Amino acid sequence: MRINIKRDSKIALYIQIKNQIRDMIYSKRLPLNYVLPSERELAKILDVNRSTVKKAYEELKSEGLINSEVGRGTYVVFCDEDELITKSNNCKKHLFWDEIYNESSKNNYADVMSRIMKISDNDKTISFAGGIPSPDLFPKDEFGKVQMDLCKSKLEIMFLHSPVSGNNELKKEIKKLMLNREVRVSTNNIMITSGSQQGLDLIARTFVNCNDVILVEEPTFFGAIQLFQTLGAKVVGVPIDEDGIRVDVLEYLVNRLKPKFIYSIPNFQNPTGITMSLKRRYELMKVVEKYGIPIIEDDPYGEIRYEGEELPSLKALDKNGYVIYLSTFSKVISFGLRVGWIVAPERVINKLSLVKQLTDLHVNTLGQHMICEFLRQGYYENHIKKIRKEYHLKRNLMIKKLEENFKELEFYRPQGGFYLWCKFPDNIDFNLLLEKSMKNGVNYIPANFFYANNEVESKFIRLNFTYPANEEIITGLKRLRNSLDETIKETN
Amino acid sequence: MRINIKRDSKIALYIQIKNQIRDMIYSKRLPLNYVLPSERELAKILDVNRSTVKKAYEELKSEGLINSEVGRGTYVVFCDEDELITKSNNCKKHLFWDEIYNESSKNNYADVMSRIMKISDNDKTISFAGGIPSPDLFPKDEFGKVQMDLCKSKLEIMFLHSPVSGNNELKKEIKKLMLNREVRVSTNNIMITSGSQQGLDLIARTFVNCNDVILVEEPTFFGAIQLFQTLGAKVVGVPIDEDGIRVDVLEYLVNRLKPKFIYSIPNFQNPTGITMSLKRRYELMKVVEKYGIPIIEDDPYGEIRYEGEELPSLKALDKNGYVIYLSTFSKVISFGLRVGWIVAPERVINKLSLVKQLTDLHVNTLGQHMICEFLRQGYYENHIKKIRKEYHLKRNLMIKKLEENFKELEFYRPQGGFYLWCKFPDNIDFNLLLEKSMKNGVNYIPANFFYANNEVESKFIRLNFTYPANEEIITGLKRLRNSLDETIKETN
Repeated sequence: MRINIKRDSKIALYIQIKNQIRDMIYSKRLPLNYVLPSERELAKILDVNRSTVKKAYEELKSEGLINSEVGRGTYVVFCDEDELITKSNNCKKHLFWDEIYNESSKNNYADVMSRIMKISDNDKTISFAGGIPSPDLFPKDEFGKVQMDLCKSKLEIMFLHSPVSGNNELKKEIKKLMLNREVRVSTNNIMITSGSQQGLDLIARTFVNCNDVILVEEPTFFGAIQLFQTLGAKVVGVPIDEDGIRVDVLEYLVNRLKPKFIYSIPNFQNPTGITMSLKRRYELMKVVEKYGIPIIEDDPYGEIRYEGEELPSLKALDKNGYVIYLSTFSKVISFGLRVGWIVAPERVINKLSLVKQLTDLHVNTLGQHMICEFLRQGYYENHIKKIRKEYHLKRNLMIKKLEENFKELEFYRPQGGFYLWCKFPDNIDFNLLLEKSMKNGVNYIPANFFYANNEVESKFIRLNFTYPANEEIITGLKRLRNSLDETIKETN
Repeated sequence: MRINIKRDSKIALYIQIKNQIRDMIYSKRLPLNYVLPSERELAKILDVNRSTVKKAYEELKSEGLINSEVGRGTYVVFCDEDELITKSNNCKKHLFWDEIYNESSKNNYADVMSRIMKISDNDKTISFAGGIPSPDLFPKDEFGKVQMDLCKSKLEIMFLHSPVSGNNELKKEIKKLMLNREVRVSTNNIMITSGSQQGLDLIARTFVNCNDVILVEEPTFFGAIQLFQTLGAKVVGVPIDEDGIRVDVLEYLVNRLKPKFIYSIPNFQNPTGITMSLKRRYELMKVVEKYGIPIIEDDPYGEIRYEGEELPSLKALDKNGYVIYLSTFSKVISFGLRVGWIVAPERVINKLSLVKQLTDLHVNTLGQHMICEFLRQGYYENHIKKIRKEYHLKRNLMIKKLEENFKELEFYRPQGGFYLWCKFPDNIDFNLLLEKSMKNGVNYIPANFFYANNEVESKFIRLNFTYPANEEIITGLKRLRNSLDETIKETN
């Protein structure tokens, strides 16, 4: 057995030893049962520390190639064909997929959700469940033009690869958009993502260790809760009131639980529709600065304000770069293109890019170019004005119909966004209500999905008013009324 | 303190108790230092098991809301304002981002790789590093037509949301494609992914637990190694010879190490270019069946064969549904659209969809429609013929130039795919060679990235011949020649 050590190599000595013995075993130059020199002997021969040989042998043992026994020494165990033959006499082993999923995939929490969501593919069901913009408001004329222009000028480029962190021209447009939101950043602070869901995923995968605590508003977006929990985090809810997250509770929990980060949706919060007051935003940022804790600001709806005064984002109030800001074009331009973005300190963007590269390399180039061109040609401002107006009308329609037909319901009147968060009276059987509703062809998301422990006696449901057409809002609420009546009748 | 228990609720009793006490604490109905009933007392009052109250109290303790002390009992600790005020007298705590990344993000292995890759954005550098198709071979006329047609017929649909597992029309086209590959599946066995990188990511996130062993060919695709390691897996390499993965070693390691799955690239393997022989494929499948272990078959290059006979994929030989098959349009149609797919048992597809939903909801709709239409209109077959021919010529050109100018090099002659795997003579300083090459404006990927332990004394580099234009292949190899000469000169 001859081993050549290179002392000037960058490769650790023990790895050199391990690799060479491994090669000799696999090429059968060292046959089954061959007795290796003892650690002491080999160390002496190679003139290395005994611990170096020990480490090499340990690695080889962990790969199942050698074994040690008192009295017998260290010997090669590859390849004991008898052992394998014995094995082959037994029956074939069956593969049970359900047994080999990892821990985080074993819960089937998300199953129920996809069952609710799937119904929306059904033609006749009216969906108040999604968080999807109105198909009628997609700016098709503008996109028709954009597409024609791009076909002429950039047909090839649109189909080639992009940088991992995104197309630089698009970043420049987003930089301008952020300036309108009173946030001054460089393109190095921006990363393009496949919607904000991916932004959240990349952040979670970069920061979350198993058992980390993450503080979230309670209730909050189910996609965030599930994602964090899938990665092994302990998600702890902080109550919200009409001014947003309760900062007194938040500070207390930050101090006690040392969370990895805070996740917040300050504008037209999902699901409650509540907008964090300016005072509360300042208080929140004070806690963030005091404890040096990052905050993930998720702002998919910020531009979709119908009434009231615009408020600065947390990122705009962030003097120290502690806020990671997420936004997306999914709610305002096109859901299907899957283009969103992250604003964060450059070092964080670089770290997130490494994860992005392993995840899916980059956001689809075509979608980036289309959005970029849409912004560059100046269609954005008018489009936003249009959807604000239309969603405002839809919100009012849903409120009117709820007030007319659901006198027992209470709900918050959101100044923008996509949802109404409706409180039912006591003693409604919510499982039965959901069942009845799905049978009657209307769906929505029940409250428990928006809570970290998912087991909560909540009287709320979330209704989306942007996706359904006006007549669907009317018909859908009639179906909900019937479902509620049937539920009450059956339980009394 | 009044707690209402609902015995007919689906919510566990201890959670009901916990939630109600928590609400009372946050609303300050139970003030700081309020002493709660003992577990025994409360159990008696509510007529529940003492262990139920114990569990509720434990949850409240873990959220930092109550505390127990001998002699003092269990009391509310929210909200000790003195504690927070003391804290605020101290300086603000600074946030050090580098300290809060999770374990898997702490290694900066991928950093070096992105440095190499980034060079390819530099105008003057010639890149043999990527795994990217030739920009000149993008079927632009066909895509121009496809885009026009879609603009007329489906303008809106292209920008709306898609099902999580992908567009059904595209799945039907892929089903046909799979039939050509001798694999008969239903659309329920297919999931559309954002390139095969995402397919791999979804699989890894669904199956891999920390410390799981995964067996891979050695060397293999760095993106797979890094991904698996990021999720905490122990990646163990199985040597390959000219017939592909060494099944004798594989079976031995399967038996010894009980791996979670095997990852293999049977066609024009990355980086070696080796194609697994038919005999070896049968042997491999025998081991898979014998031990009931899943195998991930990554097949991005299978269609790009220049010579030799087509071989059935592992999936085509898979009688029991143990193979998860990955492929993509990135290498043959468009890299930038990010459209790939997974073929797997339906139960596995459903599980993967749940992860996909948390990751980025769905693959961009526009890309799915474009690829679908490209296939539907029958452009695929001719396009494949064309790229086979062109890449064949490029491969031959690179081989010719290598043979002319690098007499000291050995390399395997691949029957298809994207890469030449070149072996240098002994005593080349590979770090210096890489440095020189990057300075001279040519890049490639050194061997160590393709090994699980990344520390290996390997004499190989991987050269890609599909992305560079013909004249770039010639110039790039001249630069490599100069870099090699400089390296030899400086080290002697």
